[in-house]
Amino acid sequence: MASVNPPRGMRDFLPAEKARRERVLAVIRERYRVHGFDEIETPVMEEHARLHAGIGGDNEKLAYNVLKRGLDADAIRSAADDASALTDLGLRYDLTVPLARFYATNRGQLPSVFRSIQIAPVWRAERPQKGRYRQFVQCDIDIIGDASARAEAELVVATLDTLDALALEGGSVRINDRRALDWMLDSFGFDADERPGVLITIDKLDKIGPSGVVAELRERDATTAAVDAFEKYLNRPQTLEYHPYGERQIRKALPEGAPDDIVAHLVGIGESVAAARASTGSATGEGDAASGEDRSAAGETVSGDIPLTFDPFLVRGMGYYTGTIFELAHPSVGYSLGGGGRYDGMIGRFLGQDIPAVGFSIGFERLVDLVEERADAAADAVVLVHDRDVPERELLALKAALIARGSRVRLEQRTKNLKALLERAASDGYTAFATVATGATADALEVKPLS
Amino acid sequence: MASVNPPRGMRDFLPAEKARRERVLAVIRERYRVHGFDEIETPVMEEHARLHAGIGGDNEKLAYNVLKRGLDADAIRSAADDASALTDLGLRYDLTVPLARFYATNRGQLPSVFRSIQIAPVWRAERPQKGRYRQFVQCDIDIIGDASARAEAELVVATLDTLDALALEGGSVRINDRRALDWMLDSFGFDADERPGVLITIDKLDKIGPSGVVAELRERDATTAAVDAFEKYLNRPQTLEYHPYGERQIRKALPEGAPDDIVAHLVGIGESVAAARASTGSATGEGDAASGEDRSAAGETVSGDIPLTFDPFLVRGMGYYTGTIFELAHPSVGYSLGGGGRYDGMIGRFLGQDIPAVGFSIGFERLVDLVEERADAAADAVVLVHDRDVPERELLALKAALIARGSRVRLEQRTKNLKALLERAASDGYTAFATVATGATADALEVKPLS
Repeated sequence: MASVNPPRGMRDFLPAEKARRERVLAVIRERYRVHGFDEIETPVMEEHARLHAGIGGDNEKLAYNVLKRGLDADAIRSAADDASALTDLGLRYDLTVPLARFYATNRGQLPSVFRSIQIAPVWRAERPQKGRYRQFVQCDIDIIGDASARAEAELVVATLDTLDALALEGGSVRINDRRALDWMLDSFGFDADERPGVLITIDKLDKIGPSGVVAELRERDATTAAVDAFEKYLNRPQTLEYHPYGERQIRKALPEGAPDDIVAHLVGIGESVAAARASTGSATGEGDAASGEDRSAAGETVSGDIPLTFDPFLVRGMGYYTGTIFELAHPSVGYSLGGGGRYDGMIGRFLGQDIPAVGFSIGFERLVDLVEERADAAADAVVLVHDRDVPERELLALKAALIARGSRVRLEQRTKNLKALLERAASDGYTAFATVATGATADALEVKPLS
Repeated sequence: MASVNPPRGMRDFLPAEKARRERVLAVIRERYRVHGFDEIETPVMEEHARLHAGIGGDNEKLAYNVLKRGLDADAIRSAADDASALTDLGLRYDLTVPLARFYATNRGQLPSVFRSIQIAPVWRAERPQKGRYRQFVQCDIDIIGDASARAEAELVVATLDTLDALALEGGSVRINDRRALDWMLDSFGFDADERPGVLITIDKLDKIGPSGVVAELRERDATTAAVDAFEKYLNRPQTLEYHPYGERQIRKALPEGAPDDIVAHLVGIGESVAAARASTGSATGEGDAASGEDRSAAGETVSGDIPLTFDPFLVRGMGYYTGTIFELAHPSVGYSLGGGGRYDGMIGRFLGQDIPAVGFSIGFERLVDLVEERADAAADAVVLVHDRDVPERELLALKAALIARGSRVRLEQRTKNLKALLERAASDGYTAFATVATGATADALEVKPLS
């Protein structure tokens, strides 16, 4: 007989944890919906060929493949040297490949700028380890069809609002642009073909520091003059002074002569985020959208306190990014809560045309762990502890009466260990209990808090 | 390149349909939760051996199996005559097998009477046809650990309340007991070993009528005297008079001498359902739980208007039922909206002991189709149609201001075909629109209804 546990690396969710997950999901759904994002859903399986078309990067190797139905002995034998002949479908390993397929399938029925949200499980056959699961939920928001900085701003504003709604105020976004990175590496003198390797090293800056990065670049035999120029730049005294966000600061953080269009796009994101937050801050909702304009026209910062940080060394792993990249941070944790970027080339691959797209993936599993355990607001959840001999119809009548008054109700037959029974109920979110004898009425029940 | 469509028999959900599904799910979740049911979640995959242990009946043949990772040529070749050697996991084809496994895994952390709800997709490689999908959502509610009729009553009351909350008032439940069926067939003189075949024929009564059933039984070569007795019974004038629900009526619907314990269980369900509904009906919530007692003590009906119908010929397909069986009906449709029953033997299989269990599976896909398309209650959802030249930061500020006032907001750049743009927004649930020019403020916006 099979093991009694869930499959390796996969989890059961018990009532308290499931309720918490659904509570967080409901908040995410509601906030993004209010910000104009539309939720979609795709099947958990996609065609094998689509999952292995190169978009998924290293995740393709981790895909779970589904056995073809009705394979006979000959078909199996002839697949010995090519196991992919055994499979026609696979479980998705991310939500980006399905989104690209969905958009190609359904484009005619979607708005010209399509703001999507997907909250759904993905599967990766990774080596199980603490905090890594083979089935986990991703939460992806994407804007397809808008090349302007407005799209990035909408993503950032909606995401920070969602964190606020989860009582995780204080979130912030580190931002960079792949084109700025490319230009910067060019300007130092790195060759285009050594760029991918150099980026992998730069991605470690947080961990190994400037001297570690320089040492690794020298080990890599990167162009010596370029490494020297980069080292000099890294060691400028003002390098790590990235605040406040705005044109002056972005230009200061980059080597001299950064392209105007890239800087303007980055500044535009900040201006719009600042305008949205200023607008929300004003009680009348009138906003002061114009106030940023004067300052930025003067080359000043967009706003001293918007939660954006320009980070010229932010890299992000995936190969498909073409412009803006960002990462979501929260003061309570040292790791990223999510990230994303612009990937203008990918969505259009199945349509044969370029379609601008920018997206953000929130680490749902990390977020759930951060959200405080809270009882439902104003929930009145009562355990009715009854003796064995109370007639069933009386119990059902009492339960229905309390539900009609707005309570959530669980019936429990009294056990010897009443304390354990009540503790379990409390951990499932129940807030009160009453003992029920034959003849009890809802009005006469003595309801006591579970503490 | 792979097809641009979702895999055969599987569906994408576009925004309007996805929103509707989530709305229905939220109501189901909330109502069962209030009735003391706890939602759980299991991985979509279970071990292959567990999925193919015989619980799943015919569905086992329809399971999607997952290819083992890292198979080499030898392993594939040696699996030629036993394809199951290629797979270690499979996608669940129902929610009952995972529930049994979940209960065995987590029993120590669950209340002694565990009321579970699962709302989750399942997969079956069926031949695709209209209304049949290879991925679809099931909604299962189960009570584990309670052998009394109270469990059936809680299921029925919670389910009818949920239908009411979905504005599908008027639902009703047909009920029978497998033990009553077995006893009845015994009393006619059928042999125990011909019982399964006879039940399959009786299950067609609604379709082929009494004469069709009798003819098929004769074709089957069922015991002649038993078929004669059954025919006589079927053709009693009062056979189809099943209302009102109560002891007298149940005894009248069954051949004389039905076992007291079975009848008492069926009557008990009705008494508790009646008490719960009477209790809810009374404005004070005090209930009149006692009022049914006098009547039933006198052998009278439990209540003339409870939505239960005793049907001595209700069969239900699955082999694992051991007692009560039921089916959910609604006046708006001719087919069943769900069904279930008692399956006391199954949950304990993995634990080596008998554990009483009774469950109900609601046909979520059918239910969603029935629920009327309704705009969110009191939702104020505004499309801001803007010209190309309105500064991004102004748009973001306006959007944020309207969101802060409680609106859901979508930005749309004006297109030549404004009508099509607005119609699409309306189909996504937007209720109003405003055109935005440079310098617009939230207070001065002229918001018009989308009609």
